[in-house]
Amino acid sequence: MTETNGESRLATVQLLLPDLREALAADPASAAGLFEELHPADGVDLISALEDEEILTLFANIPPADTAMLTAFMEASTAYELLRQLPSELVADILEQMDPDDGAELLAEFEDEEQAQVLSQMEQEDREEAAALLAHEEETAGRLMTPQFVTVPIEGTAATAIERARAGAREEWSMHSLYVVDENQILRGRITLMEALAAEPNEKIVDLMDTDPPKVYVDTDQEEVARVVSKYDLIAVPVLEHSGAMAGIITVDDMVDILIEEGTEDAHRLGAVEPLDNPYFATGFWEMAWKRGMWLCLLFFVTMFTGTVLQHSSDMLTHTLNLILFVPLVIASGGNSGAQSATLVTRALATGEVKVRDAVRVAGREIGMGLSLGFVLATLGFARAILWDTGHLVAWIVAITLICVCTWGALLGSMLPLLLKKVGIDPAIASSPFVASMVDVSGILLYMAVAHAILHVP
Amino acid sequence: MTETNGESRLATVQLLLPDLREALAADPASAAGLFEELHPADGVDLISALEDEEILTLFANIPPADTAMLTAFMEASTAYELLRQLPSELVADILEQMDPDDGAELLAEFEDEEQAQVLSQMEQEDREEAAALLAHEEETAGRLMTPQFVTVPIEGTAATAIERARAGAREEWSMHSLYVVDENQILRGRITLMEALAAEPNEKIVDLMDTDPPKVYVDTDQEEVARVVSKYDLIAVPVLEHSGAMAGIITVDDMVDILIEEGTEDAHRLGAVEPLDNPYFATGFWEMAWKRGMWLCLLFFVTMFTGTVLQHSSDMLTHTLNLILFVPLVIASGGNSGAQSATLVTRALATGEVKVRDAVRVAGREIGMGLSLGFVLATLGFARAILWDTGHLVAWIVAITLICVCTWGALLGSMLPLLLKKVGIDPAIASSPFVASMVDVSGILLYMAVAHAILHVP
Repeated sequence: MTETNGESRLATVQLLLPDLREALAADPASAAGLFEELHPADGVDLISALEDEEILTLFANIPPADTAMLTAFMEASTAYELLRQLPSELVADILEQMDPDDGAELLAEFEDEEQAQVLSQMEQEDREEAAALLAHEEETAGRLMTPQFVTVPIEGTAATAIERARAGAREEWSMHSLYVVDENQILRGRITLMEALAAEPNEKIVDLMDTDPPKVYVDTDQEEVARVVSKYDLIAVPVLEHSGAMAGIITVDDMVDILIEEGTEDAHRLGAVEPLDNPYFATGFWEMAWKRGMWLCLLFFVTMFTGTVLQHSSDMLTHTLNLILFVPLVIASGGNSGAQSATLVTRALATGEVKVRDAVRVAGREIGMGLSLGFVLATLGFARAILWDTGHLVAWIVAITLICVCTWGALLGSMLPLLLKKVGIDPAIASSPFVASMVDVSGILLYMAVAHAILHVP
Repeated sequence: MTETNGESRLATVQLLLPDLREALAADPASAAGLFEELHPADGVDLISALEDEEILTLFANIPPADTAMLTAFMEASTAYELLRQLPSELVADILEQMDPDDGAELLAEFEDEEQAQVLSQMEQEDREEAAALLAHEEETAGRLMTPQFVTVPIEGTAATAIERARAGAREEWSMHSLYVVDENQILRGRITLMEALAAEPNEKIVDLMDTDPPKVYVDTDQEEVARVVSKYDLIAVPVLEHSGAMAGIITVDDMVDILIEEGTEDAHRLGAVEPLDNPYFATGFWEMAWKRGMWLCLLFFVTMFTGTVLQHSSDMLTHTLNLILFVPLVIASGGNSGAQSATLVTRALATGEVKVRDAVRVAGREIGMGLSLGFVLATLGFARAILWDTGHLVAWIVAITLICVCTWGALLGSMLPLLLKKVGIDPAIASSPFVASMVDVSGILLYMAVAHAILHVP
């Protein structure tokens, strides 16, 4: 692979840093010129090398529209930490220049009082737009949508569509499709800009439009929005009120961010970390310690029962000390088998490949899988026991336990995410470590039970 | 949350199933009518309820263009399994009707001989286009791009741009931006269709265009493409030859699929499953058994060393039997701590938040984190040991070991993905179970070493 665009641009951008620092020291307002030729995403890379005070000097001196462009490409939490240090009138000016959806995302970061303060200083139209978006629940379509979309009356023609698109384009609204509405703003169809361009000017909208375009509602969860956008390969999806009236659109670039964010959340939960809201290095030490520590402590308490089980079997363990050699192996094998099942089922639920109603089918498959894999590990474990010269009884105990524990792990690991989903909890909290801990405890129980049965020790 | 669009559409689609079955039985060609009003993605939902033979009857009787639309919305592997059963002339007809990028993705599934056979029966232009895409490596921009894009000569005006867009639209090419090229097809800039529409017809392209649009090269890895598309919020990204000439474009809807696919691959690796190429239920039992079994066996071999360590310490264990009670707890805590670090660092590497050059900073943070979290668990473990009445010596051994093992786990879990990335291996194979197994072994070693030191038992 050759040098990619991302890397080479980054290097070019960093060459501008001395110029920027010089401008900030001499005449901060002149720094705006440096950003004119840069994509805002590159502008964010450039200022990320600055101290917070330098960024604040920059924001206080360049036009609010420039600051708005830069902050729209920052993590919302990072942008908030900077903006909260600026006078609220300036923040209001900056927010007025942002796209409504980006502005709402940023305003959501503010404390209630700060938010009210900033909103009160925005122009009425922008204030009302922002307040309307903020009234929707977090992580719903209503919060993510922008109210800047182009409609065409259903009586119109291809020429009307082009004229409407041109008007929208002059407002710098991005658009791909035009939404066909009746007199009550109820969505009746969709026509892509391409279709309007390709048609004869006097062709009727009703003859051109797609009458049943994919859509979501203001309270649709963002994961479901992502699924609709991905399933139908959409560039933008219309968001409707329950009356059927157009409320906004969500564009696919926001969905890309959501998919990455949801992927990170799932990965963190699967690794038994409470999802971080910010990037790794931007998360405070104690916040991260808390988000990891709470899970570690919970897992610790669960695993503690292994000691209780071992204590109850201490007579047998003293009698057949070789059993101890396999304790870590037996519990780890069950835990690994469970972690695999939990991962597969959680991810399949997230992508919609598996549904809760498939539970019986999944269970059947996982039991078969656990038995087969357990049989392989049992063979290895049996051989190892013979090599360690632990006696045939211990070898049989280990082999039988491995089959049981792999099967139980696979079953528990696959059913737990389905159960959580069923009761409305994110299945990803059935993380590998969590499933492994539960299988650890049952693994020890199984191991001791099998040993008791075979050795006939009380 | 109310009923979402996806669910209600699915229900509507399923109502058509009896009609479809009836049409297939009576007059298969008439079934085409049922798909006219359906989005192809919904059409795929509809036929997914059919038996393979029924689908083959359908494909053999409806126009190749209809089959092309449906197969473009299927998993490539599923579409291949169906198409390989059709005569190769028909497959060639279907492929000619597909977008070149979708066609190439599907052709890549075919065995070499079958592929050559189908290609030889395609029209020359389509064949050459497909062969050119297939010549690029899998998972690179060249393989994903479509050669259907619209260019504008750099000498042109806004009116030229609209005229070019209209011509492209009549070919049913999807487009968002027009790519400005010189006489050698070298990319010189980009103008969005919106900008062209908003401009006065006689405005010059050079005055309207963005002169440095984000771009990728034919050999750029698909993960990097996704990163560029996401960073710059692009709807489409131009793909260049190394000469700078336009080779194709990649649209964001393909990137959405890639992001989901890469998310699944990472999740599977993190859960110690070799990534599946197909959805959960579409993967054969023995294929899945192999992809899970290979990891389970590898982890089994790693964990076996715990037994070796315990065997070497058997005198001490007989002497202080209470040490055994904490074996699962100590190793699980280290494993969990390591799994958390591995997850955080792997995901941060995937999203670009952390780079390999940050290794020292990550190590410092993880050591601090491991010490803090270890201290908390040590307190809990100490208390538990006192409650179990194991004696103060064991309580101290457990506490000290927990601090060491949490710190070691955090360090190993964070450094392993960075090391793998450095040597060019996917860091996600440093899965939670893999890191946990390695920490299991070192955890037992640490535990026994601390016990030896404190108990002074040889």
